[in-house]
Amino acid sequence: MKAKIIITPKKAVLDPQGKTVQNALEHMGYQGISAVHVGKYLEIEVAGDKETIRKQIDEACHKILSNPVIEDYRFELE
Amino acid sequence: MKAKIIITPKKAVLDPQGKTVQNALEHMGYQGISAVHVGKYLEIEVAGDKETIRKQIDEACHKILSNPVIEDYRFELE
Repeated sequence: MKAKIIITPKKAVLDPQGKTVQNALEHMGYQGISAVHVGKYLEIEVAGDKETIRKQIDEACHKILSNPVIEDYRFELE
Repeated sequence: MKAKIIITPKKAVLDPQGKTVQNALEHMGYQGISAVHVGKYLEIEVAGDKETIRKQIDEACHKILSNPVIEDYRFELE
């Protein structure tokens, strides 16, 4: 089974990476950009039954893979 | 309109970040993990018509946001 995890900065948190990417894109002539947010994407291939994996991935996201103070996470299992 | 971009290392390329995360998860007792791949996730909010934006995002992904030699990218527009 494959877990696809997306970790993004919380909306209220300053996103310097996003700002940097936005400035670079505008500098290269891309118009109309109002915001850029940069986060992490993880794919974890894991064996086991779906419900156990769901709990494990949720716990891993909360404890290790993301910083709950400044980041949000969401994932899907395929 | 919002572009959601996912950039991942090519399958053939060594993924030290993925290996590190895999070791950490196994070290903390998570079983059954066969592979971990770590990539980037970007959200770009941009105004304009869909086809123009699709071309711009594709070009930006290819030229700036990803390294086509070692990374693959895919995106969707919402």
